[in-house]
Order: sequence, then structure tokens, then C-alpha cells
Amino acid sequence: MKPIKRRKTRLIKAGRARIGGKSPISVQSMTNTDTRDVRATVRQIKGLERAGCEIIRVAVPDIASAKVLKEIKRKINIPLVADIHFDPQLAIESINRGVDGIRINPGNIGGVELSLKQRKEIVKSIVEKARTRKVYIRVGVNSGSLDKDLLRKYKDKATPEALAESALRSIRMVEKFGFRDIVVSLKSTDVLTMVRAHEILAEKGDWPFHLGVTEAGMGKTGIVKSAMGIGSLLLEGIGDTIRVSLSGPPVEEVKVGWEILKSLKLREKGLTVISCPTCARTKIEVANIAKYIESFSESIEKPFTIAVMGCIVNGLGEAQWADLAIVGLESKKAAVFKKGKFIKNIQPKEVKPFLKAILTNLGTTQNVKLRKSK
Amino acid sequence: MKPIKRRKTRLIKAGRARIGGKSPISVQSMTNTDTRDVRATVRQIKGLERAGCEIIRVAVPDIASAKVLKEIKRKINIPLVADIHFDPQLAIESINRGVDGIRINPGNIGGVELSLKQRKEIVKSIVEKARTRKVYIRVGVNSGSLDKDLLRKYKDKATPEALAESALRSIRMVEKFGFRDIVVSLKSTDVLTMVRAHEILAEKGDWPFHLGVTEAGMGKTGIVKSAMGIGSLLLEGIGDTIRVSLSGPPVEEVKVGWEILKSLKLREKGLTVISCPTCARTKIEVANIAKYIESFSESIEKPFTIAVMGCIVNGLGEAQWADLAIVGLESKKAAVFKKGKFIKNIQPKEVKPFLKAILTNLGTTQNVKLRKSK
Repeated sequence: MKPIKRRKTRLIKAGRARIGGKSPISVQSMTNTDTRDVRATVRQIKGLERAGCEIIRVAVPDIASAKVLKEIKRKINIPLVADIHFDPQLAIESINRGVDGIRINPGNIGGVELSLKQRKEIVKSIVEKARTRKVYIRVGVNSGSLDKDLLRKYKDKATPEALAESALRSIRMVEKFGFRDIVVSLKSTDVLTMVRAHEILAEKGDWPFHLGVTEAGMGKTGIVKSAMGIGSLLLEGIGDTIRVSLSGPPVEEVKVGWEILKSLKLREKGLTVISCPTCARTKIEVANIAKYIESFSESIEKPFTIAVMGCIVNGLGEAQWADLAIVGLESKKAAVFKKGKFIKNIQPKEVKPFLKAILTNLGTTQNVKLRKSK
Repeated sequence: MKPIKRRKTRLIKAGRARIGGKSPISVQSMTNTDTRDVRATVRQIKGLERAGCEIIRVAVPDIASAKVLKEIKRKINIPLVADIHFDPQLAIESINRGVDGIRINPGNIGGVELSLKQRKEIVKSIVEKARTRKVYIRVGVNSGSLDKDLLRKYKDKATPEALAESALRSIRMVEKFGFRDIVVSLKSTDVLTMVRAHEILAEKGDWPFHLGVTEAGMGKTGIVKSAMGIGSLLLEGIGDTIRVSLSGPPVEEVKVGWEILKSLKLREKGLTVISCPTCARTKIEVANIAKYIESFSESIEKPFTIAVMGCIVNGLGEAQWADLAIVGLESKKAAVFKKGKFIKNIQPKEVKPFLKAILTNLGTTQNVKLRKSK
């Protein structure tokens, strides 16, 4: 099958990572610690790195938060982005402290009451500073903080057209000064708005897009909205880096981000478990076995697909594509397949020990390799 | 904003429900009890009904399962669909027992070793029976059970083209006998394959589509895959009824199904909570408050949107669109907005009692109305 054809975008340097061009679509997250608490912030970032976070953003709501960014950056391994609202001094200070990127919303920088001319002066000062320090700028537009005149024009509705126009205005404000290291985000809590806004803006230039549904919410709701919004754009080839927003521990954002990219075959990483929803035909404890397999996820880096299927209806078919398959048979036996080849039948009580041996080995072999390669 | 324009499909009667045409996109699920255990099966279906399930499918792996369908149907309120594989007698018996629909895969009915001619005879007998009893047929093609000759043709790969061709062949086998009450599903564990297969088949006729990603897996993985596959097709206007497949309790499938439809504004139902992912700027306990609000979900039927925002950056903007908004302010106060209008500031400890009063009232008023309307 033809893989997804990605939209052509310019390549941006984000510290040691790359965004856009032909670089892999990266997974981002944002800390929710008090940034000034360096220990807590670094601990959270380290946890996110282990989960596969590739770029991290921290909120910089005051000058004290900006001042600790150098120390945070020294202690972590992934590019650091400062999230700035309103106060341009926080952007300047963050750049001085060595961040790899800053996120600003030119529509609110300097405060929302500024004249356009004043705002341009402020943006210019930030852009000049970013240029000298080779820092990229994410121009981030959000349905919750649209320019007032655009809201008037679009009758108080943050429509896709309003979002795209706001982004375009902000991008021009930055590009006017010859600065091109721009990543753009167009966030809305509304999935349809977010998708359409990107579709509109995608036609207007080659800026890499940072995809996200903002304030997606908790658990299921947040995962559903993020997967639909980010996923349907990725299916169209739109999107260069992604951030899932969930209320709760940010490590979940990274896990969901990876699930999105893996499910679309855009990236590969660790275990993938295919399991059937079970029905009256089910001969083995599918959910229980799938959960057991997933408990090994953290230790396995190499792509490996396991199918757990309750019966032979689709089981034999799915076993053809998986690296390993456990398929329920009559009288509670399970058939084991490796890469589509039948290996043996096993009893229910043998399933977990059998999987344990394989999965532990998979983890260990890789870890030995990883250690050696360092 | 322009709403999603739905693909034109023929209208199918599924008991008292409708699929296709201009009827609302419905949420389905499937039981995972032993169908013969009527009490357990009915109990599960009742729970699914309460969660918003609108059509229920049960597996019919043997004749004893078919024989209890009449009793099950009498005890439930939503259309009942029998899921049949291999044995045509199970289809005939299920129709005799009064189901509203049957799901067959004409590619495996009668067993996989039949000649095409023998298979056609079998399909004919089922179609004739379905016609006399006004039962609709879901023609269900699945990546795990593709016709062998198609697998050969497509080099052992269940490509989108192979799935679409298999479906078209099955549809024709049924339509040949003048039968048009068909719903089609094209399931794959691979999101991209599932999406592309529907895009191909959508051009070939006006059958309503039942969307689902098969064997999507557990928890996060399953939700992500289902939301992306179902969601991106719905965004294109494709899809008339949906079923989320998750390994685990089927009630989760219904909840996720509703989240998908609500997030795309295709249906409305109960509470919608927008909450920010929190960061160093957060002034209130966003996740905790959002979770508290969600604990009222079950009792509220009427659409009602609440935004819980950690700070004013996007908080004031989001408060404009929500029915109710709680926005974190400096020194841990929270501002309350109703339909975009500022109401008052409250202290952290007042947030839950305040919400409780509103949400309980919302539930009670509706319940009184619901009782009266009966």
C-alpha cells in the first residue's frame, strides 16, 4: 500500500532535533511543574524522555522561570522550548538562557491592548534576538486567544478561517524581518475547526506544522479528540511534530502521541498489541493476556507486533501479519504462530510463561545492545 | 462554520432504528457474554443501552445461541443483530427468531472451501429469508478473513484495494437477488488500510457504511486507532453507524463512540468537558475539578459544555463558548462564567459545592422531564 505522502515543508533546526522537511514526525509534550522548581521540572522531563518525548516545552510565566532555563537545559537531553505569553522580556531572557525554541503568540505579545505598530516593534526585538542565537520560533495561534479585530470580523466565532488568518498575520509579522525558522500551530478545542484551519493554511506556505487539539480534556475525551484531530491531518500528509494535550500527567500525552504515529505507520517503536474485542466465540482470556503483554512495553524498544485473538474467525488471518500471534482454539487451547507460521498449541496456563520468556528475552537482548552501543 | 457534509447513502431500516440517509449516525456495540446465557447477555445489553448503545450485535456461534435470540430481543429495547460466520443455518435460525439484522461475510459463509456456485446458493437462501422477514444484512469484510483468491491476487496483503474488491464481490452476491437492505463494513486492524478502503468503496455505490477498526486493542491503543480511523472518515462525510472495538467491557466502546460523534458535533449528548493540560501558569486543580464534573456524566442527558481552564491565557477565550466556565486567576481564585458572561469569583474550596449544585439540578430537572414524558 502507498504510504502517506507528506506535505512539503521547510526544515527547521530545534537544537539537536529537526522539524519538517523529511525528518520524522516528532512527539512533544509540556511540563506542568512549577518551572522555577528545577528539580521537579527536570525529573518530569527525564520521565518524559524515557517515554519517548523528543521536544519539551515549559511555561515561562515570570522572569524567575526564565532564569532557571539554562540549568534545566544542562540537565536534560532533548530540545527545550520556552512558552511565552504577553511579556516580551520573558522571550528575550529565555533566549539568553539558551533555549532551543520559543513559542509566542504574536497576537498577544506585549499585551492585548497594544497598537499594531507597537506590537511589530516588540516582535522585531524578539526575532532579532532569536536570529543571533539560532533559536526557532513557534508561532502559536489558539482559539482561546484570537486577535480581537478578527473575532469581530468573524462574528465572535473562532472559525477555521479566523484561525488561519490570525496565523498568517502572525507569520508575516515574523517573516517581515527575514526570519524563516518558524513552526506554526493552530489550536482549537474543536476538532473540525482545527482540521479545517490547517487545511486552509497548508495551501499558503511551507511552514512545518505543530499539531494539537487544545484543551482536549481528560482521559477518553482528550485521547479521542487528539487522535481524531491530529490523526486525520496526518492521514492527509499534514503535520511535522505533534503534541497531545491531556489534563493530567504529561507522560500520558507522550504515550498517546506515539500510539498515533505508530498506528499510522509513520514511526515505529516497541510493542504493538493487536487484540480482538472478544465475543461469545472467544476461547482465551484476550484482555487479560493483552494487558500482560503490555506490562512489558517499557523494556522493549524494537518494533514487535503481537496479535491476541479470541477465536479463529479473524485469528488465523491476523496471525499472518504479526510477529507473534496467540489464537484461541476449541476446548480452550491456544495456537501460537510466529511470523505467520504455526508453531504449536499451548494450554491456557502455559500462555503467560511462554510470553514471559519471549518478551523478557526481547527486552534483554536489546538492552545489552543499547548498553554496548553507548 | 460549515458542518460536515455527509455522503449520500440509502436509508436502511434496522428494527426501530434507521441507518443511512439522513438518519443520525448511530453508536453500536457487541456483547462479549456467552449468548446462550440470556440473563448475562440481557444484563450487558441493558447496561449498554443506558450508556447510549443504539444497535447491539451478538455472536451466534452455534444453534443454541440462535435459539435464545427471541427471548433476548423481547427483553431489550434496541435493535438486535446476529453475527454469523461459516454456518448458514445459524443465519436462517437467527432470522426466524426475530433479529432485526444479520451480519455475514459472504466470503466465509458455508465454510471457506466452497465453490463460488455453492456459495451463491447459500447466500441466496439467506437473502430470501431476510427479505420475507424484513431483516437487513450487514455485509462485513475483514482483513483477517479475506477471500483466498483475492489474497493471492494482492500478494497475500489485505490492501485497501483487496478489501474494497472483496466487499464489492460480496455486495453483488447479495444484490444479485434484488436485495438492497445492505449495510457494509470494511474492517482492518490497520487504520490507513481501513480509511483508504472506505474511500475507494464510497465511490462505487450508496450503501450505508458501518465504520470500525477491527481488533483495535486495549485501552489507549484501541481508542487512538478507533478515533483516528472512524474520525477521519466521518470528517470526510463517510460513515452512517459506528462501532469502536476495544478488548474489555463493551460499555467502553459505547462511551468512546459517543465521544467521537460529540467531538465532531455530529451528535449531542450530555456533558462535554473542555479542560486545559495545565502548566506552570495553572492556578486551580484542573484535572481534579474536571474529574469531579465527569462524575455527574451518567445523570445528565442534555448537551452542556463546561470549560475548566488553569489560567487566563486561553481561559477567557474559551469561557466565551462554554455554557459554564471555571477559570483560574491569580492567588488561587477562580472566575465563573455562564455563557460567556462573568458571574463571580470563588475560592478553591467553593468550586466543588458550586458545581455540585448546578450539576445536580441539571440532572434532576431533566430526570423529572424524562419521567413526565413517559
